[in-house]
Amino acid sequence: MEAAVRELTVELGERAYPIWIGSGLLSRTGELFAERGFPEKSPVLLVTDAAVAHLYAETVETSLRASGYEVQRAVVTVGEASKSLSVFDGLIEAALEAGLDRKSTVIALGGGVVGDLAGFVAATYMRGVRFVQMPTTILAHDSSVGGKVAVNHRLAKNIIGAFHQPEFVLYDLDTLLTLPPREVRAGLSEVIKHGLIWNADFVRWFDEHAERLLGLDPEALGYALYEGCKVKSIVVSQDERENDLRAILNLGHTIGHALEAVAGYGELLHGEAIAIGMAGAARLAVRFGYDPAIAAETERIFRKFGLPVRIPADINPDAVMKAMMHDKKFKEGQMVFIVPTSIGSVEIRQDVPSDWVREIVEQLREGAGEA
Amino acid sequence: MEAAVRELTVELGERAYPIWIGSGLLSRTGELFAERGFPEKSPVLLVTDAAVAHLYAETVETSLRASGYEVQRAVVTVGEASKSLSVFDGLIEAALEAGLDRKSTVIALGGGVVGDLAGFVAATYMRGVRFVQMPTTILAHDSSVGGKVAVNHRLAKNIIGAFHQPEFVLYDLDTLLTLPPREVRAGLSEVIKHGLIWNADFVRWFDEHAERLLGLDPEALGYALYEGCKVKSIVVSQDERENDLRAILNLGHTIGHALEAVAGYGELLHGEAIAIGMAGAARLAVRFGYDPAIAAETERIFRKFGLPVRIPADINPDAVMKAMMHDKKFKEGQMVFIVPTSIGSVEIRQDVPSDWVREIVEQLREGAGEA
Ligand SMILES: NC(=O)c1ccc[n+]([C@@H]2O[C@H](COP(=O)([O-])OP(=O)(O)OC[C@H]3O[C@@H](n4cnc5c(N)ncnc54)[C@H](O)[C@@H]3O)[C@@H](O)[C@H]2O)c1
Ligand SMILES: NC(=O)c1ccc[n+]([C@@H]2O[C@H](COP(=O)([O-])OP(=O)(O)OC[C@H]3O[C@@H](n4cnc5c(N)ncnc54)[C@H](O)[C@@H]3O)[C@@H](O)[C@H]2O)c1
Ligand SMILES: [Zn+2]
Ligand SMILES: [Zn+2]
Repeated sequence: MEAAVRELTVELGERAYPIWIGSGLLSRTGELFAERGFPEKSPVLLVTDAAVAHLYAETVETSLRASGYEVQRAVVTVGEASKSLSVFDGLIEAALEAGLDRKSTVIALGGGVVGDLAGFVAATYMRGVRFVQMPTTILAHDSSVGGKVAVNHRLAKNIIGAFHQPEFVLYDLDTLLTLPPREVRAGLSEVIKHGLIWNADFVRWFDEHAERLLGLDPEALGYALYEGCKVKSIVVSQDERENDLRAILNLGHTIGHALEAVAGYGELLHGEAIAIGMAGAARLAVRFGYDPAIAAETERIFRKFGLPVRIPADINPDAVMKAMMHDKKFKEGQMVFIVPTSIGSVEIRQDVPSDWVREIVEQLREGAGEA
Repeated sequence: MEAAVRELTVELGERAYPIWIGSGLLSRTGELFAERGFPEKSPVLLVTDAAVAHLYAETVETSLRASGYEVQRAVVTVGEASKSLSVFDGLIEAALEAGLDRKSTVIALGGGVVGDLAGFVAATYMRGVRFVQMPTTILAHDSSVGGKVAVNHRLAKNIIGAFHQPEFVLYDLDTLLTLPPREVRAGLSEVIKHGLIWNADFVRWFDEHAERLLGLDPEALGYALYEGCKVKSIVVSQDERENDLRAILNLGHTIGHALEAVAGYGELLHGEAIAIGMAGAARLAVRFGYDPAIAAETERIFRKFGLPVRIPADINPDAVMKAMMHDKKFKEGQMVFIVPTSIGSVEIRQDVPSDWVREIVEQLREGAGEA
């Protein structure tokens, strides 16, 4: 790849794969397929959503066809509701109709919804075919790395899934220019998360470059996504299947998921919900006796990026607590939380008293007397 | 395990697991769970079909409860139609309602239908939980070993699946006594297959013990299932994901699957369809110049076990050919077949002319002039 492109490797032994981050990459898809020996005779399925299809599918398809690949497009409706078994069923049908065989490739072109959904198709079609991630949202720097793929069940998010690593991740920064500003901010929330769990210097750099990041300056954005993907890939390569370490990536997610569920999916974006969740985790840190500045700093940074750190007033704290009890991270009778120990590092606590959590959920409500 | 129990290991590195074959094993389930450190706090889901539930579920549940495990039963309708995404969806719901967590176990108690279906639940619920196979049909000596799990799509059988190895296989021979005789014969068809691809001595022994096997003599049956599982596990441990060698297990399946599809699932049992398919493969061997006795011997043995070696007259040869073209084993423009080279060994041929296949399909039709 040429100079401007940043490259990373997710070290997973025989499943290791590269991440490329840069400009103008979509039009190089075919070239990369050929270089990496993807068989020309096996059709490719390009999965994307209606918004992204319109903007970027053709570039990818043209590039693949120019290199001799046959490609069929499968377009799903925009939004989280597409991560369902019935949409999955339709994609399996599309794969069959496109004649995909065991050597075929499924491409996810889009945000985390498309990545998770297409990834589950790739993981299960004929018991697993090649998979390529082409993230087009900032949030998807997270979802496209690490191999977690899933669909939702009516009763629980991401409950049906697999670990299925991509062959490569191709991150074309140009696509991010069309992202709605609210999606930009929400995506940056997961990037900050990677700093908060692993790298204080990166948090500092991030803080100092807020304006350039929010303005989608390609150099700043490329560096931030590179650093974010790097943290994710280091963690994943040490614990692919989330036996222990990988859980730290859930910082802010216990409260965050509960908020998403209670607000109704779509009301709060995932990145917004976890920003509030990270503010909550930072307050837990203080309860555990860590430096009170952790909580203040965390909130200050999120506010600087236009992200919420308060629970909307119309959300009922009881419902939030109840939703948390259903969360996967609620294990064998005790609450599990990822808790900061300083800016840039965290610990996994299995012993978080639920009344502390309750207290913090109350404090975080918009309009509650400031704690 | 005590004396009468035969034990085998499927050698798959860190995913290695034991197969136990013997009498009175169901009532030892709880004991085995405890011995192997399955966590007591995590609920177990017992998946079975309506016929098997009635006969054997309680024995398993009582045993688990006596050892301190919480277990919920999920019963599906008897038959291949239960290997669907919608039944799968219902089982995910049952798992959620039973409170299964990441350390929980899904048990398949039943034939290959229950094994494949419950296995796919275990492979995907929370991205994979523990899985235990308790086969109760003879055919399931095949499906319970090797980790292939799947459900069907309206357009294709076994097209949605995963590789998910069980923690162990517990094969209680006592359960086989209630199997309908037609299921017994159909199951023995896959056992013979394991001899035909790998072990001439075993075919000879099998041939000599037809009466005891058909009479479900526990000693003969235990030995036959042990040898059948052994061939399967040797092949699987050399090629878990069917990159090459594992394909030999498909002897008889190219024609067999086509017959099942054309006859309508349920008309011909799987074991019956592949008996006809193996007769066809043996004729291909002769066309390739191998000993003509292969075809005669193959047919003689299947007939001895009351298995069909002719295609029912009402099945249209064109439809069979067309169904084969849709089969996964039809690769990149050429027909792939597993072809015997003698009784007890096979080769994978990528170069089988489709007109040979056509000819043989015609010859095999009931009432066609004997070839
Ligand atoms: N697998 C993982 O490890 C992991 C990690 C984090 C999140 N996730 C999942 O990711 C999903 C959220 O991802 P997301 O925030 O990317 O959501 P998304 O895929 O719904 O994308 C957000 C919105 O942006 C639009 N969009 C995407 N790219 C665009 C572009 N370049 N220009 C204009 N519009 C564009 C989409 O159409 C959509 O409306 C959730 O389902 C979450 O569970 C998965
Ligand atoms: N995963 C694999 O590697 C693999 C290999 C071969 C076959 N299979 C699958 O296996 C399935 C066929 O398996 P099967 O033949 O066991 O079918 P099955 O599970 O439908 O069982 C056959 C019948 O026997 C009944 N039954 C089961 N155990 C009984 C018992 N002990 N007493 C009385 N009745 C009993 C069942 O209710 C059913 O009616 C197919 O779906 C096939 O695709 C999978
Ligand atoms: Zn997240
Ligand atoms: Zn079979």
